[in-house]
Amino acid sequence: MTELTDFSKLCIHTQTTKPWSIEECIAHFSKSGVRGISIWRHLLEGKDLKKIKTLLEINKMEPVSLVRGGFFPSLESHQRELALQDNRLAIDQAAALGAPVVVLVCGADPGQDLEVSRRQIIDGINQLIPYAKNMGVKLAIEPLHPMYAGDKSAVVSLEQANDMCESIASPMVGVAIDVYHLWWDNNLKNEIFRCGKNKNILAFHVCDWRVPTIDFLTDRGLMGEGCIPIKQIRKWVEEAGFEGYNEVEVFSDRLWAQDQKLYLEDIKKSYINHT
Amino acid sequence: MTELTDFSKLCIHTQTTKPWSIEECIAHFSKSGVRGISIWRHLLEGKDLKKIKTLLEINKMEPVSLVRGGFFPSLESHQRELALQDNRLAIDQAAALGAPVVVLVCGADPGQDLEVSRRQIIDGINQLIPYAKNMGVKLAIEPLHPMYAGDKSAVVSLEQANDMCESIASPMVGVAIDVYHLWWDNNLKNEIFRCGKNKNILAFHVCDWRVPTIDFLTDRGLMGEGCIPIKQIRKWVEEAGFEGYNEVEVFSDRLWAQDQKLYLEDIKKSYINHT
Repeated sequence: MTELTDFSKLCIHTQTTKPWSIEECIAHFSKSGVRGISIWRHLLEGKDLKKIKTLLEINKMEPVSLVRGGFFPSLESHQRELALQDNRLAIDQAAALGAPVVVLVCGADPGQDLEVSRRQIIDGINQLIPYAKNMGVKLAIEPLHPMYAGDKSAVVSLEQANDMCESIASPMVGVAIDVYHLWWDNNLKNEIFRCGKNKNILAFHVCDWRVPTIDFLTDRGLMGEGCIPIKQIRKWVEEAGFEGYNEVEVFSDRLWAQDQKLYLEDIKKSYINHT
Repeated sequence: MTELTDFSKLCIHTQTTKPWSIEECIAHFSKSGVRGISIWRHLLEGKDLKKIKTLLEINKMEPVSLVRGGFFPSLESHQRELALQDNRLAIDQAAALGAPVVVLVCGADPGQDLEVSRRQIIDGINQLIPYAKNMGVKLAIEPLHPMYAGDKSAVVSLEQANDMCESIASPMVGVAIDVYHLWWDNNLKNEIFRCGKNKNILAFHVCDWRVPTIDFLTDRGLMGEGCIPIKQIRKWVEEAGFEGYNEVEVFSDRLWAQDQKLYLEDIKKSYINHT
Protein backbone atom coordinates (compact mmCIF):
# COMPACT_ATOMS: atom_id res chain seq x y z
CA MET A 1 0.00 0.00 0.00
CA THR A 2 1.06 3.62 -0.39
CA GLU A 3 2.88 4.99 2.63
CA LEU A 4 1.89 8.41 3.87
CA THR A 5 4.74 10.83 3.21
CA ASP A 6 3.20 14.20 3.97
CA PHE A 7 0.38 15.82 5.90
CA SER A 8 -1.78 16.86 2.97
CA LYS A 9 -4.50 14.38 3.98
CA LEU A 10 -4.18 14.74 7.74
CA CYS A 11 -7.27 15.99 9.52
CA ILE A 12 -7.54 16.25 13.29
CA HIS A 13 -10.72 16.29 15.33
CA THR A 14 -10.89 19.15 17.79
CA GLN A 15 -11.82 16.60 20.48
CA THR A 16 -8.41 14.96 19.96
CA THR A 17 -6.86 18.04 21.54
CA LYS A 18 -9.74 18.56 23.93
CA PRO A 19 -8.01 21.12 26.20
CA TRP A 20 -7.85 23.60 23.29
CA SER A 21 -10.57 26.04 22.27
CA ILE A 22 -11.68 26.19 18.64
CA GLU A 23 -9.43 29.20 18.13
CA GLU A 24 -6.43 27.35 19.63
CA CYS A 25 -7.12 24.25 17.53
CA ILE A 26 -7.22 26.34 14.34
CA ALA A 27 -4.08 28.28 15.22
CA HIS A 28 -1.97 25.33 16.37
CA PHE A 29 -3.11 22.88 13.69
CA SER A 30 -2.45 25.46 10.98
CA LYS A 31 0.97 26.46 12.30
CA SER A 32 1.86 22.79 12.47
CA GLY A 33 1.03 22.21 8.80
CA VAL A 34 -2.25 20.39 9.35
CA ARG A 35 -4.89 21.41 6.81
CA GLY A 36 -7.97 19.40 7.82
CA ILE A 37 -10.07 19.99 10.93
CA SER A 38 -13.22 18.22 12.10
CA ILE A 39 -15.08 20.45 14.49
CA TRP A 40 -16.96 19.30 17.57
CA ARG A 41 -20.07 21.32 18.19
CA HIS A 42 -19.64 22.08 21.89
CA LEU A 43 -16.68 24.29 20.93
CA LEU A 44 -19.05 26.46 18.90
CA GLU A 45 -21.35 27.38 21.78
CA GLY A 46 -21.57 31.14 22.10
CA LYS A 47 -19.36 31.68 19.06
CA ASP A 48 -20.01 33.78 15.96
CA LEU A 49 -19.79 31.19 13.20
CA LYS A 50 -18.91 33.80 10.58
CA LYS A 51 -15.85 34.70 12.62
CA ILE A 52 -14.88 31.05 12.96
CA LYS A 53 -15.30 30.58 9.22
CA THR A 54 -13.08 33.61 8.58
CA LEU A 55 -10.51 32.24 11.03
CA LEU A 56 -10.51 28.91 9.15
CA GLU A 57 -9.98 30.72 5.86
CA ILE A 58 -7.21 33.00 7.13
CA ASN A 59 -5.42 29.94 8.53
CA LYS A 60 -6.00 27.91 5.37
CA MET A 61 -7.83 25.22 7.32
CA GLU A 62 -10.43 23.01 5.65
CA PRO A 63 -13.44 22.08 7.79
CA VAL A 64 -13.81 18.37 6.98
CA SER A 65 -16.83 17.53 9.09
CA LEU A 66 -19.00 18.75 11.92
CA VAL A 67 -19.33 16.35 14.87
CA ARG A 68 -21.96 15.37 15.79
CA GLY A 69 -25.61 14.92 15.01
CA GLY A 70 -27.75 11.85 15.41
CA PHE A 71 -29.25 10.41 18.62
CA PHE A 72 -32.52 9.75 16.85
CA PRO A 73 -34.10 6.89 18.87
CA SER A 74 -36.26 7.40 21.89
CA LEU A 75 -39.28 5.81 23.49
CA GLU A 76 -40.72 9.33 23.60
CA SER A 77 -41.90 10.92 20.37
CA HIS A 78 -41.23 14.46 21.61
CA GLN A 79 -37.62 13.45 22.26
CA ARG A 80 -37.36 12.19 18.69
CA GLU A 81 -38.72 15.56 17.51
CA LEU A 82 -36.16 17.42 19.64
CA ALA A 83 -33.44 15.27 18.08
CA LEU A 84 -34.59 16.29 14.61
CA GLN A 85 -34.47 19.95 15.62
CA ASP A 86 -30.95 19.52 16.95
CA ASN A 87 -29.88 17.79 13.75
CA ARG A 88 -31.24 20.68 11.69
CA LEU A 89 -29.18 23.02 13.88
CA ALA A 90 -26.11 20.85 13.23
CA ILE A 91 -26.76 21.08 9.49
CA ASP A 92 -27.07 24.87 9.81
CA GLN A 93 -23.77 25.02 11.69
CA ALA A 94 -22.00 22.83 9.15
CA ALA A 95 -23.30 24.99 6.31
CA ALA A 96 -22.25 28.16 8.12
CA LEU A 97 -18.71 26.86 8.52
CA GLY A 98 -18.49 25.31 5.06
CA ALA A 99 -18.21 21.76 6.44
CA PRO A 100 -19.60 19.33 3.84
CA VAL A 101 -20.63 16.59 6.29
CA VAL A 102 -22.34 16.14 9.64
CA VAL A 103 -21.24 12.93 11.37
CA LEU A 104 -24.14 11.04 12.95
CA VAL A 105 -23.79 9.11 16.19
CA CYS A 106 -27.12 7.48 15.62
CA GLY A 107 -28.21 6.75 19.18
CA ALA A 108 -30.09 3.97 20.98
CA ASP A 109 -32.70 3.84 23.70
CA PRO A 110 -31.99 1.02 26.18
CA GLY A 111 -35.70 0.84 26.92
CA GLN A 112 -36.58 -0.54 23.51
CA ASP A 113 -35.41 -3.21 21.12
CA LEU A 114 -32.41 -2.41 18.93
CA GLU A 115 -34.50 -3.06 15.83
CA VAL A 116 -36.99 -0.39 16.93
CA SER A 117 -34.14 2.04 17.47
CA ARG A 118 -32.78 1.18 14.03
CA ARG A 119 -36.13 1.94 12.38
CA GLN A 120 -36.28 5.27 14.25
CA ILE A 121 -32.79 6.10 12.99
CA ILE A 122 -33.84 5.47 9.39
CA ASP A 123 -37.02 7.51 9.94
CA GLY A 124 -35.04 10.37 11.44
CA ILE A 125 -32.50 10.47 8.63
CA ASN A 126 -35.23 10.31 5.99
CA GLN A 127 -36.95 13.29 7.59
CA LEU A 128 -33.71 15.30 7.50
CA ILE A 129 -32.81 14.66 3.87
CA PRO A 130 -34.75 17.54 2.27
CA TYR A 131 -33.23 19.98 4.77
CA ALA A 132 -29.74 18.57 4.30
CA LYS A 133 -30.10 18.73 0.54
CA ASN A 134 -31.27 22.31 0.69
CA MET A 135 -28.29 23.28 2.82
CA GLY A 136 -25.82 21.22 0.79
CA VAL A 137 -24.61 19.20 3.80
CA LYS A 138 -24.25 15.42 3.72
CA LEU A 139 -25.05 13.09 6.61
CA ALA A 140 -22.56 10.37 7.57
CA ILE A 141 -23.89 7.38 9.52
CA GLU A 142 -21.06 6.30 11.83
CA PRO A 143 -21.42 2.71 12.99
CA LEU A 144 -20.07 2.55 16.55
CA HIS A 145 -18.42 -0.34 18.38
CA PRO A 146 -20.94 -2.87 19.76
CA MET A 147 -19.90 -1.85 23.28
CA TYR A 148 -21.98 1.31 22.67
CA ALA A 149 -25.14 -0.53 21.60
CA GLY A 150 -26.79 0.06 24.99
CA ASP A 151 -27.17 3.80 24.70
CA LYS A 152 -25.08 5.43 21.98
CA SER A 153 -25.68 3.59 18.72
CA ALA A 154 -27.96 0.85 17.51
CA VAL A 155 -25.77 0.86 14.38
CA VAL A 156 -22.80 -1.33 15.31
CA SER A 157 -21.41 -2.66 12.05
CA LEU A 158 -20.56 -1.38 8.61
CA GLU A 159 -22.98 -3.96 7.23
CA GLN A 160 -25.84 -2.25 9.08
CA ALA A 161 -24.74 1.21 7.97
CA ASN A 162 -24.54 -0.03 4.37
CA ASP A 163 -27.98 -1.61 4.66
CA MET A 164 -29.36 1.68 5.95
CA CYS A 165 -27.72 3.71 3.19
CA GLU A 166 -29.07 1.38 0.52
CA SER A 167 -32.52 1.52 2.08
CA ILE A 168 -32.44 5.34 2.32
CA ALA A 169 -30.88 5.63 -1.13
CA SER A 170 -30.06 9.34 -1.08
CA PRO A 171 -26.89 10.97 -2.39
CA MET A 172 -27.00 13.09 0.80
CA VAL A 173 -26.43 10.06 3.09
CA GLY A 174 -23.27 7.98 3.46
CA VAL A 175 -20.99 6.46 6.08
CA ALA A 176 -18.13 7.45 8.38
CA ILE A 177 -15.72 4.54 8.73
CA ASP A 178 -13.81 4.56 12.03
CA VAL A 179 -11.17 1.88 12.60
CA TYR A 180 -11.74 1.96 16.38
CA HIS A 181 -15.35 0.89 16.00
CA LEU A 182 -14.98 -1.62 13.19
CA TRP A 183 -11.54 -3.28 13.25
CA TRP A 184 -12.75 -6.52 14.92
CA ASP A 185 -15.24 -7.35 12.14
CA ASN A 186 -14.25 -10.18 9.81
CA ASN A 187 -16.64 -8.79 7.19
CA LEU A 188 -14.99 -5.37 7.24
CA LYS A 189 -13.08 -5.61 3.97
CA ASN A 190 -16.12 -6.71 1.97
CA GLU A 191 -18.32 -4.07 3.56
CA ILE A 192 -15.76 -1.33 2.84
CA PHE A 193 -15.79 -2.30 -0.83
CA ARG A 194 -19.59 -2.43 -0.81
CA CYS A 195 -19.66 1.04 0.74
CA GLY A 196 -17.15 2.34 -1.79
CA LYS A 197 -19.00 0.87 -4.73
CA ASN A 198 -22.04 2.87 -3.66
CA LYS A 199 -19.84 6.02 -3.37
CA ASN A 200 -20.90 6.15 0.26
CA ILE A 201 -17.61 6.57 2.14
CA LEU A 202 -17.85 10.13 3.45
CA ALA A 203 -15.19 9.98 6.18
CA PHE A 204 -12.34 7.83 7.50
CA HIS A 205 -11.35 8.06 11.17
CA VAL A 206 -8.20 6.62 12.73
CA CYS A 207 -6.83 5.94 16.22
CA ASP A 208 -5.81 2.70 17.93
CA TRP A 209 -7.18 0.08 20.34
CA ARG A 210 -5.02 -0.24 23.44
CA VAL A 211 -4.52 -3.60 25.17
CA PRO A 212 -5.85 -3.54 27.76
CA THR A 213 -8.36 -0.74 27.25
CA ILE A 214 -9.42 0.54 30.65
CA ASP A 215 -12.20 3.01 29.90
CA PHE A 216 -15.21 2.78 27.61
CA LEU A 217 -14.81 6.34 26.32
CA THR A 218 -11.47 7.96 27.01
CA ASP A 219 -8.72 5.37 26.62
CA ARG A 220 -8.14 5.36 22.88
CA GLY A 221 -4.59 5.09 21.60
CA LEU A 222 -2.62 7.09 19.10
CA MET A 223 -1.99 5.13 15.90
CA GLY A 224 0.69 2.52 16.67
CA GLU A 225 -0.17 2.27 20.37
CA GLY A 226 -2.60 -0.59 19.89
CA CYS A 227 -3.55 -3.60 17.83
CA ILE A 228 -5.66 -2.22 14.97
CA PRO A 229 -4.28 -2.99 11.48
CA ILE A 230 -4.71 0.67 10.51
CA LYS A 231 -2.57 0.62 7.35
CA GLN A 232 -4.47 -2.41 6.10
CA ILE A 233 -7.83 -0.77 6.65
CA ARG A 234 -6.68 2.52 5.07
CA LYS A 235 -5.56 0.52 2.05
CA TRP A 236 -9.01 -1.05 1.69
CA VAL A 237 -10.72 2.32 2.08
CA GLU A 238 -8.50 3.87 -0.61
CA GLU A 239 -8.94 0.87 -2.91
CA ALA A 240 -12.67 1.36 -2.42
CA GLY A 241 -12.29 4.79 -3.98
CA PHE A 242 -12.06 7.10 -0.98
CA GLU A 243 -9.79 10.09 -1.56
CA GLY A 244 -10.61 12.23 1.46
CA TYR A 245 -8.79 13.03 4.68
CA ASN A 246 -7.51 10.58 7.28
CA GLU A 247 -9.12 12.02 10.41
CA VAL A 248 -7.33 11.50 13.73
CA GLU A 249 -9.99 11.11 16.41
CA VAL A 250 -8.47 10.16 19.75
CA PHE A 251 -10.20 10.50 23.13
CA SER A 252 -7.68 9.93 25.89
CA ASP A 253 -7.42 11.24 29.43
CA ARG A 254 -3.78 10.17 29.31
CA LEU A 255 -2.99 12.17 26.16
CA TRP A 256 -5.15 15.16 27.10
CA ALA A 257 -3.02 15.47 30.25
CA GLN A 258 0.11 16.07 28.16
CA ASP A 259 1.39 19.34 26.73
CA GLN A 260 -0.90 19.60 23.71
CA LYS A 261 1.73 21.23 21.46
CA LEU A 262 4.12 18.33 22.03
CA TYR A 263 1.21 15.94 21.65
CA LEU A 264 0.40 17.49 18.27
CA GLU A 265 3.90 16.61 17.12
CA ASP A 266 3.36 13.04 18.37
CA ILE A 267 0.12 12.87 16.39
CA LYS A 268 2.02 13.84 13.24
CA LYS A 269 4.74 11.22 13.86
CA SER A 270 2.14 8.59 14.59
CA TYR A 271 0.28 9.61 11.42
CA ILE A 272 3.32 9.18 9.17
CA ASN A 273 4.62 5.99 10.81
CA HIS A 274 1.49 4.05 11.73
CA THR A 275 -1.43 5.15 9.53
CA MET B 1 -42.50 -17.92 24.83
CA THR B 2 -42.58 -20.24 27.81
CA GLU B 3 -42.06 -18.48 31.10
CA LEU B 4 -39.68 -20.04 33.59
CA THR B 5 -41.66 -21.30 36.57
CA ASP B 6 -39.13 -23.33 38.50
CA PHE B 7 -35.39 -23.73 39.01
CA SER B 8 -34.96 -27.09 37.30
CA LYS B 9 -32.93 -25.50 34.50
CA LEU B 10 -31.07 -22.94 36.59
CA CYS B 11 -27.32 -23.31 36.62
CA ILE B 12 -25.00 -20.82 38.33
CA HIS B 13 -21.35 -20.23 37.54
CA THR B 14 -19.13 -20.33 40.59
CA GLN B 15 -17.63 -17.01 39.45
CA THR B 16 -21.07 -15.43 39.86
CA THR B 17 -20.63 -15.85 43.61
CA LYS B 18 -16.91 -15.23 43.50
CA PRO B 19 -16.37 -14.77 47.26
CA TRP B 20 -17.40 -18.40 47.86
CA SER B 21 -15.12 -21.44 47.69
CA ILE B 22 -16.15 -24.43 45.60
CA GLU B 23 -17.43 -26.13 48.76
CA GLU B 24 -19.50 -23.07 49.69
CA CYS B 25 -20.91 -22.78 46.17
CA ILE B 26 -21.98 -26.43 46.21
CA ALA B 27 -23.51 -26.21 49.69
CA HIS B 28 -25.37 -22.92 49.19
CA PHE B 29 -26.54 -23.60 45.65
CA SER B 30 -27.84 -27.02 46.65
CA LYS B 31 -29.58 -25.78 49.79
CA SER B 32 -31.20 -23.07 47.71
CA GLY B 33 -32.67 -25.56 45.23
CA VAL B 34 -30.23 -24.87 42.40
CA ARG B 35 -29.21 -28.07 40.60
CA GLY B 36 -26.75 -26.89 37.96
CA ILE B 37 -23.23 -25.59 38.61
CA SER B 38 -20.57 -24.46 36.17
CA ILE B 39 -17.20 -24.67 37.82
CA TRP B 40 -14.35 -22.20 37.34
CA ARG B 41 -10.99 -23.90 37.39
CA HIS B 42 -9.14 -21.62 39.80
CA LEU B 43 -11.42 -22.92 42.56
CA LEU B 44 -10.03 -26.41 41.96
CA GLU B 45 -6.41 -25.54 42.65
CA GLY B 46 -5.03 -27.80 45.37
CA LYS B 47 -8.30 -29.71 45.60
CA ASP B 48 -8.88 -33.47 45.41
CA LEU B 49 -11.23 -33.74 42.44
CA LYS B 50 -12.64 -37.06 43.66
CA LYS B 51 -13.76 -35.36 46.84
CA ILE B 52 -15.33 -32.51 44.88
CA LYS B 53 -17.13 -35.01 42.68
CA THR B 54 -18.44 -36.82 45.76
CA LEU B 55 -19.54 -33.50 47.22
CA LEU B 56 -21.44 -32.70 44.02
CA GLU B 57 -23.15 -36.10 44.15
CA ILE B 58 -24.07 -35.90 47.83
CA ASN B 59 -25.57 -32.46 47.21
CA LYS B 60 -27.36 -33.59 44.04
CA MET B 61 -25.54 -30.95 41.99
CA GLU B 62 -24.97 -31.43 38.27
CA PRO B 63 -21.67 -30.08 36.92
CA VAL B 64 -22.80 -28.40 33.69
CA SER B 65 -19.48 -27.15 32.42
CA LEU B 66 -15.89 -26.47 33.36
CA VAL B 67 -14.69 -22.90 32.76
CA ARG B 68 -12.37 -22.31 31.04
CA GLY B 69 -9.97 -23.60 28.42
CA GLY B 70 -8.86 -21.92 25.24
CA PHE B 71 -6.33 -19.07 24.81
CA PHE B 72 -4.83 -20.80 21.78
CA PRO B 73 -3.26 -17.94 19.77
CA SER B 74 0.23 -16.67 20.32
CA LEU B 75 3.08 -15.30 18.26
CA GLU B 76 5.25 -17.89 20.07
CA SER B 77 4.89 -21.56 19.14
CA HIS B 78 5.95 -22.73 22.61
CA GLN B 79 3.13 -20.65 24.09
CA ARG B 80 0.69 -22.34 21.76
CA GLU B 81 2.03 -25.71 22.93
CA LEU B 82 1.63 -24.68 26.57
CA ALA B 83 -1.96 -23.70 25.80
CA LEU B 84 -2.64 -27.17 24.39
CA GLN B 85 -1.21 -28.76 27.55
CA ASP B 86 -3.42 -26.58 29.71
CA ASN B 87 -6.46 -27.47 27.64
CA ARG B 88 -5.70 -31.18 28.09
CA LEU B 89 -5.56 -30.54 31.83
CA ALA B 90 -8.94 -28.80 31.63
CA ILE B 91 -10.36 -31.81 29.80
CA ASP B 92 -8.93 -34.09 32.51
CA GLN B 93 -10.52 -31.96 35.22
CA ALA B 94 -13.89 -31.90 33.47
CA ALA B 95 -13.79 -35.67 33.07
CA ALA B 96 -12.81 -36.13 36.73
CA LEU B 97 -15.80 -34.05 37.86
CA GLY B 98 -18.23 -35.48 35.34
CA ALA B 99 -18.66 -32.15 33.53
CA PRO B 100 -19.60 -32.82 29.90
CA VAL B 101 -18.20 -29.58 28.46
CA VAL B 102 -15.15 -27.35 28.68
CA VAL B 103 -15.96 -23.76 27.72
CA LEU B 104 -13.30 -22.20 25.50
CA VAL B 105 -12.35 -18.54 25.73
CA CYS B 106 -10.43 -18.79 22.53
CA GLY B 107 -7.84 -16.06 22.98
CA ALA B 108 -6.11 -13.49 20.76
CA ASP B 109 -2.59 -12.14 20.47
CA PRO B 110 -2.60 -8.36 19.90
CA GLY B 111 0.74 -8.72 18.12
CA GLN B 112 -0.76 -10.51 15.15
CA ASP B 113 -3.71 -10.20 12.78
CA LEU B 114 -7.06 -11.49 14.02
CA GLU B 115 -7.24 -13.86 11.04
CA VAL B 116 -3.94 -15.45 12.11
CA SER B 117 -5.28 -15.86 15.64
CA ARG B 118 -8.45 -17.42 14.23
CA ARG B 119 -6.45 -19.98 12.27
CA GLN B 120 -4.42 -20.81 15.40
CA ILE B 121 -7.68 -21.31 17.31
CA ILE B 122 -8.94 -23.79 14.72
CA ASP B 123 -5.55 -25.56 14.72
CA GLY B 124 -5.56 -25.78 18.50
CA ILE B 125 -9.08 -27.17 18.71
CA ASN B 126 -8.36 -29.69 15.96
CA GLN B 127 -5.33 -30.93 17.89
CA LEU B 128 -7.42 -31.40 21.03
CA ILE B 129 -10.26 -33.36 19.47
CA PRO B 130 -8.80 -36.88 19.77
CA TYR B 131 -8.02 -36.25 23.45
CA ALA B 132 -11.44 -34.75 24.12
CA LYS B 133 -13.13 -37.65 22.37
CA ASN B 134 -11.15 -40.16 24.37
CA MET B 135 -12.14 -38.44 27.61
CA GLY B 136 -15.77 -37.90 26.58
CA VAL B 137 -15.64 -34.14 27.09
CA LYS B 138 -16.99 -31.67 24.54
CA LEU B 139 -15.43 -28.32 23.69
CA ALA B 140 -17.63 -25.21 23.49
CA ILE B 141 -16.33 -22.24 21.50
CA GLU B 142 -17.62 -19.14 23.25
CA PRO B 143 -17.68 -16.08 21.00
CA LEU B 144 -16.90 -13.06 23.17
CA HIS B 145 -18.01 -9.46 22.78
CA PRO B 146 -15.93 -7.52 20.21
CA MET B 147 -14.59 -5.36 23.05
CA TYR B 148 -12.41 -8.38 23.94
CA ALA B 149 -10.94 -8.82 20.44
CA GLY B 150 -7.66 -7.21 21.48
CA ASP B 151 -6.49 -9.91 23.85
CA LYS B 152 -9.20 -12.34 24.93
CA SER B 153 -10.96 -13.67 21.86
CA ALA B 154 -10.52 -13.40 18.13
CA VAL B 155 -13.94 -15.07 17.92
CA VAL B 156 -16.40 -12.20 18.35
CA SER B 157 -19.62 -13.34 16.71
CA LEU B 158 -21.82 -16.39 16.57
CA GLU B 159 -21.31 -16.38 12.81
CA GLN B 160 -17.57 -16.92 13.33
CA ALA B 161 -18.13 -19.64 15.92
CA ASN B 162 -20.56 -21.38 13.55
CA ASP B 163 -18.07 -21.08 10.69
CA MET B 164 -15.39 -22.64 12.90
CA CYS B 165 -17.64 -25.48 14.01
CA GLU B 166 -18.61 -26.25 10.43
CA SER B 167 -14.98 -26.16 9.38
CA ILE B 168 -13.89 -28.41 12.26
CA ALA B 169 -16.91 -30.67 11.78
CA SER B 170 -16.55 -32.78 14.93
CA PRO B 171 -19.35 -33.90 17.23
CA MET B 172 -16.99 -33.00 20.08
CA VAL B 173 -17.02 -29.27 19.23
CA GLY B 174 -19.91 -26.83 19.60
CA VAL B 175 -20.73 -23.35 20.88
CA ALA B 176 -21.52 -21.58 24.14
CA ILE B 177 -24.04 -18.79 23.50
CA ASP B 178 -23.79 -15.91 25.98
CA VAL B 179 -26.31 -13.08 25.72
CA TYR B 180 -23.79 -10.58 27.14
CA HIS B 181 -21.41 -11.14 24.27
CA LEU B 182 -23.88 -11.45 21.41
CA TRP B 183 -27.04 -9.42 22.09
CA TRP B 184 -26.05 -6.47 19.86
CA ASP B 185 -25.76 -8.60 16.70
CA ASN B 186 -28.56 -8.18 14.15
CA ASN B 187 -27.69 -11.60 12.71
CA LEU B 188 -28.07 -13.33 16.09
CA LYS B 189 -31.43 -15.00 15.50
CA ASN B 190 -30.36 -16.54 12.19
CA GLU B 191 -27.05 -17.69 13.61
CA ILE B 192 -28.74 -19.28 16.64
CA PHE B 193 -30.94 -21.31 14.31
CA ARG B 194 -27.94 -22.22 12.19
CA CYS B 195 -26.12 -23.36 15.33
CA GLY B 196 -29.13 -25.35 16.50
CA LYS B 197 -29.63 -27.01 13.14
CA ASN B 198 -26.09 -28.35 13.43
CA LYS B 199 -26.82 -29.58 17.00
CA ASN B 200 -24.02 -27.31 18.12
CA ILE B 201 -25.53 -25.35 21.02
CA LEU B 202 -23.67 -26.73 24.04
CA ALA B 203 -24.38 -23.98 26.56
CA PHE B 204 -26.52 -20.88 27.13
CA HIS B 205 -25.28 -18.11 29.43
CA VAL B 206 -27.35 -15.23 30.78
CA CYS B 207 -26.75 -11.93 32.57
CA ASP B 208 -27.50 -8.33 31.54
CA TRP B 209 -25.83 -5.29 29.97
CA ARG B 210 -26.00 -2.27 32.26
CA VAL B 211 -26.37 1.25 30.88
CA PRO B 212 -23.89 2.71 31.37
CA THR B 213 -21.40 -0.11 31.82
CA ILE B 214 -18.38 1.23 33.66
CA ASP B 215 -15.90 -1.64 33.61
CA PHE B 216 -14.79 -3.94 30.80
CA LEU B 217 -14.85 -7.06 33.00
CA THR B 218 -16.72 -6.69 36.27
CA ASP B 219 -19.82 -4.58 35.72
CA ARG B 220 -22.29 -7.10 34.39
CA GLY B 221 -25.87 -6.91 35.53
CA LEU B 222 -28.27 -9.46 36.91
CA MET B 223 -31.01 -10.32 34.44
CA GLY B 224 -33.43 -7.40 34.35
CA GLU B 225 -30.84 -4.80 35.32
CA GLY B 226 -29.92 -3.96 31.75
CA CYS B 227 -31.06 -3.76 28.16
CA ILE B 228 -30.54 -7.28 26.76
CA PRO B 229 -33.73 -8.93 25.43
CA ILE B 230 -32.93 -12.08 27.38
CA LYS B 231 -36.35 -13.74 27.11
CA GLN B 232 -36.32 -13.21 23.36
CA ILE B 233 -32.88 -14.77 22.98
CA ARG B 234 -33.78 -17.70 25.27
CA LYS B 235 -36.83 -18.30 23.10
CA TRP B 236 -34.70 -18.47 19.97
CA VAL B 237 -32.20 -20.81 21.64
CA GLU B 238 -35.00 -23.13 22.75
CA GLU B 239 -36.70 -23.00 19.36
CA ALA B 240 -33.33 -23.96 17.92
CA GLY B 241 -33.53 -27.17 19.91
CA PHE B 242 -31.50 -26.43 23.02
CA GLU B 243 -32.82 -28.16 26.14
CA GLY B 244 -29.96 -27.59 28.57
CA TYR B 245 -29.47 -25.28 31.53
CA ASN B 246 -29.76 -21.51 31.62
CA GLU B 247 -26.42 -20.60 33.15
CA VAL B 248 -26.20 -17.41 35.19
CA GLU B 249 -22.74 -15.93 34.67
CA VAL B 250 -22.41 -12.52 36.28
CA PHE B 251 -19.12 -10.77 37.09
CA SER B 252 -19.81 -7.74 39.24
CA ASP B 253 -17.75 -5.96 41.87
CA ARG B 254 -21.02 -4.39 43.01
CA LEU B 255 -22.82 -7.72 43.50
CA TRP B 256 -19.78 -9.53 44.91
CA ALA B 257 -19.71 -6.89 47.67
CA GLN B 258 -23.18 -7.95 48.85
CA ASP B 259 -24.09 -10.73 51.27
CA GLN B 260 -23.81 -13.69 48.90
CA LYS B 261 -26.68 -15.64 50.47
CA LEU B 262 -29.08 -12.73 49.92
CA TYR B 263 -27.59 -12.26 46.46
CA LEU B 264 -28.34 -15.91 45.66
CA GLU B 265 -32.00 -15.23 46.40
CA ASP B 266 -31.85 -12.18 44.09
CA ILE B 267 -30.37 -14.37 41.37
CA LYS B 268 -33.31 -16.74 41.69
CA LYS B 269 -35.85 -13.90 41.54
CA SER B 270 -34.09 -12.38 38.55
CA TYR B 271 -34.04 -15.81 36.92
CA ILE B 272 -37.78 -16.33 37.24
CA ASN B 273 -38.79 -12.77 36.37
CA HIS B 274 -36.33 -11.70 33.70
CA THR B 275 -34.87 -14.76 31.95
